[in-house]
Amino acid sequence: MSKKVAIIMGSDSDLPVVKNAVVELNNFGVEYELHVMSAHRTPTEACEFSTNAEKNGFGIIICCAGMAAHLAGVVAGHTILPVIAVPMKSSVLDGMDALLSSVMMPKGVPVATVAINGSANAGILAVQMLALSDETLAQKLRDMKKSMADGVRQKDANINEKLKELL
Amino acid sequence: MSKKVAIIMGSDSDLPVVKNAVVELNNFGVEYELHVMSAHRTPTEACEFSTNAEKNGFGIIICCAGMAAHLAGVVAGHTILPVIAVPMKSSVLDGMDALLSSVMMPKGVPVATVAINGSANAGILAVQMLALSDETLAQKLRDMKKSMADGVRQKDANINEKLKELL
Amino acid sequence: MSKKVAIIMGSDSDLPVVKNAVVELNNFGVEYELHVMSAHRTPTEACEFSTNAEKNGFGIIICCAGMAAHLAGVVAGHTILPVIAVPMKSSVLDGMDALLSSVMMPKGVPVATVAINGSANAGILAVQMLALSDETLAQKLRDMKKSMADGVRQKDANINEKLKELL
Amino acid sequence: MSKKVAIIMGSDSDLPVVKNAVVELNNFGVEYELHVMSAHRTPTEACEFSTNAEKNGFGIIICCAGMAAHLAGVVAGHTILPVIAVPMKSSVLDGMDALLSSVMMPKGVPVATVAINGSANAGILAVQMLALSDETLAQKLRDMKKSMADGVRQKDANINEKLKELL
Amino acid sequence: MSKKVAIIMGSDSDLPVVKNAVVELNNFGVEYELHVMSAHRTPTEACEFSTNAEKNGFGIIICCAGMAAHLAGVVAGHTILPVIAVPMKSSVLDGMDALLSSVMMPKGVPVATVAINGSANAGILAVQMLALSDETLAQKLRDMKKSMADGVRQKDANINEKLKELL
Amino acid sequence: MSKKVAIIMGSDSDLPVVKNAVVELNNFGVEYELHVMSAHRTPTEACEFSTNAEKNGFGIIICCAGMAAHLAGVVAGHTILPVIAVPMKSSVLDGMDALLSSVMMPKGVPVATVAINGSANAGILAVQMLALSDETLAQKLRDMKKSMADGVRQKDANINEKLKELL
Amino acid sequence: MSKKVAIIMGSDSDLPVVKNAVVELNNFGVEYELHVMSAHRTPTEACEFSTNAEKNGFGIIICCAGMAAHLAGVVAGHTILPVIAVPMKSSVLDGMDALLSSVMMPKGVPVATVAINGSANAGILAVQMLALSDETLAQKLRDMKKSMADGVRQKDANINEKLKELL
Amino acid sequence: MSKKVAIIMGSDSDLPVVKNAVVELNNFGVEYELHVMSAHRTPTEACEFSTNAEKNGFGIIICCAGMAAHLAGVVAGHTILPVIAVPMKSSVLDGMDALLSSVMMPKGVPVATVAINGSANAGILAVQMLALSDETLAQKLRDMKKSMADGVRQKDANINEKLKELL
Repeated sequence: MSKKVAIIMGSDSDLPVVKNAVVELNNFGVEYELHVMSAHRTPTEACEFSTNAEKNGFGIIICCAGMAAHLAGVVAGHTILPVIAVPMKSSVLDGMDALLSSVMMPKGVPVATVAINGSANAGILAVQMLALSDETLAQKLRDMKKSMADGVRQKDANINEKLKELL
Repeated sequence: MSKKVAIIMGSDSDLPVVKNAVVELNNFGVEYELHVMSAHRTPTEACEFSTNAEKNGFGIIICCAGMAAHLAGVVAGHTILPVIAVPMKSSVLDGMDALLSSVMMPKGVPVATVAINGSANAGILAVQMLALSDETLAQKLRDMKKSMADGVRQKDANINEKLKELL
Repeated sequence: MSKKVAIIMGSDSDLPVVKNAVVELNNFGVEYELHVMSAHRTPTEACEFSTNAEKNGFGIIICCAGMAAHLAGVVAGHTILPVIAVPMKSSVLDGMDALLSSVMMPKGVPVATVAINGSANAGILAVQMLALSDETLAQKLRDMKKSMADGVRQKDANINEKLKELL
Repeated sequence: MSKKVAIIMGSDSDLPVVKNAVVELNNFGVEYELHVMSAHRTPTEACEFSTNAEKNGFGIIICCAGMAAHLAGVVAGHTILPVIAVPMKSSVLDGMDALLSSVMMPKGVPVATVAINGSANAGILAVQMLALSDETLAQKLRDMKKSMADGVRQKDANINEKLKELL
Repeated sequence: MSKKVAIIMGSDSDLPVVKNAVVELNNFGVEYELHVMSAHRTPTEACEFSTNAEKNGFGIIICCAGMAAHLAGVVAGHTILPVIAVPMKSSVLDGMDALLSSVMMPKGVPVATVAINGSANAGILAVQMLALSDETLAQKLRDMKKSMADGVRQKDANINEKLKELL
Repeated sequence: MSKKVAIIMGSDSDLPVVKNAVVELNNFGVEYELHVMSAHRTPTEACEFSTNAEKNGFGIIICCAGMAAHLAGVVAGHTILPVIAVPMKSSVLDGMDALLSSVMMPKGVPVATVAINGSANAGILAVQMLALSDETLAQKLRDMKKSMADGVRQKDANINEKLKELL
Repeated sequence: MSKKVAIIMGSDSDLPVVKNAVVELNNFGVEYELHVMSAHRTPTEACEFSTNAEKNGFGIIICCAGMAAHLAGVVAGHTILPVIAVPMKSSVLDGMDALLSSVMMPKGVPVATVAINGSANAGILAVQMLALSDETLAQKLRDMKKSMADGVRQKDANINEKLKELL
Repeated sequence: MSKKVAIIMGSDSDLPVVKNAVVELNNFGVEYELHVMSAHRTPTEACEFSTNAEKNGFGIIICCAGMAAHLAGVVAGHTILPVIAVPMKSSVLDGMDALLSSVMMPKGVPVATVAINGSANAGILAVQMLALSDETLAQKLRDMKKSMADGVRQKDANINEKLKELL
């Protein structure tokens, strides 16, 4: 069976966005754990969790943080597991601060950064990584890709209808 | 044995930076293929390559592109493999254009973005993904982490010496 | 008769802005087709559509996309027709991501970019291109320019009235 | 025969970059005129030239300007011809000032903006517009696209050679 | 008597902000004319107005425009009068586009730029310029400075009161 | 007993944010004075206050200002006390103008800048400075750190509950 | 006779750029004084100078400063004279910090900001202000405008020659 | 006697800039320790050092780091001592990434941020904090302020001389 995914958020106020990662993992049937941990307020927990993540059965750690978003970088410093960062939009700067704080990591400690508030994609990216050694997940990803395309095709079929309502 | 890593660059003039990904993959003994393909100039090759990457034994695709860096996004549209983007600094805007073009992907098609010009980290991130099902690689990552720490400790030991030369 | 204009949008949620391009084309009596296609979710459709656009009677392709807006660049990679990009504002970064993703195209594959959310101007720019070989359209453009100026003159005539209401 | 292309630059010091537009137009055998005109220093000339451009046989006007790049917008205010802007990088801000000054045009007066310093693409975009009613040019564009793809393929074939030199 | 001040706005939708310049000029008893003129939609009017402004008794021209704000630069190209630019915030980019389009003028054609949406300050700056040769205005400016300081002192006196309401 | 903290704000409209600094100082039992003073509108008061702050028993000066936020820099020019700047978000640019105006101080006159709208942290930073020679405050800071960590741990314990409500 | 212009720079290392303001004032025969004063390091001098500038025969104060450029704002707080800011490019951020610190002034205390490093235009703008009540200066400005236009026309006449050398 | 200052840098390649903090501390006779530690590569050392800094006699910790500069934030998470961040300019983005990563700290864990590359000011700020309870240091700060002012006055006295050489 596939390894677990950890989703860590710096603040529980981000849950309405972070939950999109959970939704994706649920869709793919991937086991996860959700945690509130802070690189600044509970550094000990964050360090311990990431140091032990590998032996505790986790395969990937998704970190969601805003402002000076250090969580993903700090976690990545304590583990060899792939770490995915979701830069969160907060009350100023539209998440540009969190994006740069997440993505501009120095040599040796990569963080796989997705779009600002892109927690759904963080979930899917985690599944893609797990699918490298899990054909069931790979097949589900292929199915999702098809159904996503079908969705767009459906919208294309309906667009002139929709346009009429607006003109 | 581990899957191969593809490294695609949009322009061969980026090779002096892109080669750092190769160096890392060589260090870890991971097999790779290096290609010049463009989302805009050879879109057919880029589409075909990414469509067939999975069945051709690739596990991860690293895309290095500058300016309106569409390569990673286009490749990710044709595969379920994890795609890593390296936004390249070009002659204007310091790579901010490539960073935003790479990381701000819409829901359903994630791209794992690393730092501007961060090709070494792209290589290491690819190894981390492969190491999820390859204990040999995992051990090498643990070793690298240790030796990286030793390097910093060595620098810490020498810093007062170095300071004297500058004062 | 003039060639058709294709308007492609990456997501149908952008229709309230995109429809302004339709309005302009309707005003000028230029035939158009409206489509929902995604460089990332339906890349095959996007590639096929743009590859065949010229022989299917299209003269210009307008692409409306937000975030990492790859649509215009991908379409431009498959056609010699002029491609116009409308960078869409999305929930973060005010469209700056889409602007840079659209306009910073590499040598050989230009994309004619208009303002963020500037879909009306995309429609007018398409008409200007078609008018190069269509004197009827050219005359309509001259008329629009006059009526636009008259509109401003009218506002100038009324501005003191309007000011009084505010003071 | 195709209409002429005007290339206007705000300052002759930009010629080393602007000349790339000339090179493309020469390659395609498109007639052009090159001018130094300033929206701020010779506004009369700029207005007259653009007012009369259509009847003087021009089809497209390319405007190259840096800093507060008003040239393209001013020209577009006096003509119904498509106007292409090349935002020039100057000594500060990397051309971001010129990009925003060129692309963010208000409704009714579009400017087709290409990349910062993207004068070659401005030339190609002009050719694409002219090719809408000129099959010879269209064929040359198809040929250029092929040869551009061949160039990338050639680079792909040589990349491992080139890599060896760098490792 | 002092010369008149012209206030030109590119779009009458900006009046709620522009009117703050009027308020200041009214406070100081400076005569003004308010106009809607566009560098792009009524370029002839804008050019004529600014060419003749000096001989028509104007001393200063305030230009309020958003997006690719060319109005102040264009006006400054046709007059030796001091031109003040108010970059307007519009629906995207928070006025940064208008700021750069206004302030980054090339050598020889200065534009005196104030803050984004800073129309009140544009009015005051115009008064400061006129006051260089009008002692009555100068005295009013000194009075305003005093009363402004008194206002702050009053707020300082009340701040603890106000704080109590919030705690 | 510890020295007093001065909190100066450029405009009393910022009080709803500034009051968070007061709240922290109250929590720690640190004496403070709250003032409205402007580097531009009451420069004399600002200069006098900061020149005399040291001998009037103040230890730290917190300056809260938006836009071209000169207050902290001006105050720092008149005192050897540590000056803390809180860049305030105002109606445009999200506080980036105030951040750069506060933090980019020239050599010799430092300003300790905290996050945009980060007035609570300004209060805590002032306490940290005072605690250098006040063990009671230091103990309170240690307690706050513990209770802050407990708060995060509590949120971590409840997060799955909270998630259920959202799914 | 016209009033004097003061040119104040925060650091004498900026003289190579600041001298362009001097050159313009010399060209127009306007008397000036050049000073090194700092809003942060010699605030007393800066305050005294600006408080007394009006009665000491100055008409306009040009302030050149980089980084957190507070000089113009501080000076404007002590005088009713028009204050012109030249934001200087320094070693990072390309002068964007100085631009925002100069231009984003609060209501009541305007600063007339010109382009980053635009000291020549600061000189010309000062002349334009003085010319409001000095016909000799006004005529010189008209002459400069003509000669500037002639310069561009000459460059236009030579551009094809110059192009040949580059092709 | 005053407490010690710790200066930690993420990479010893930053020493040529970081040494300016050392120079200031030497000038003031403040004891310091210089270390190379990384939030990402030697997180254990960084955590231990900051956890024990208070009891090891340190009063202030200066952290110098570039790119995704997490060092100051991580250190601040483990200590109640004031932490000063110096955002370092690195090869791209001019230090804007490090500035935002340093300054945008969440509530409860402040970081006192100085200018990009502003290590001298970090040293002076540390002295200012220590001087709160050390009159000798306070007197030295007053002396430095005077001598800094004298330096500017000297430059003011020589500026016309210097100007002559440039004209």
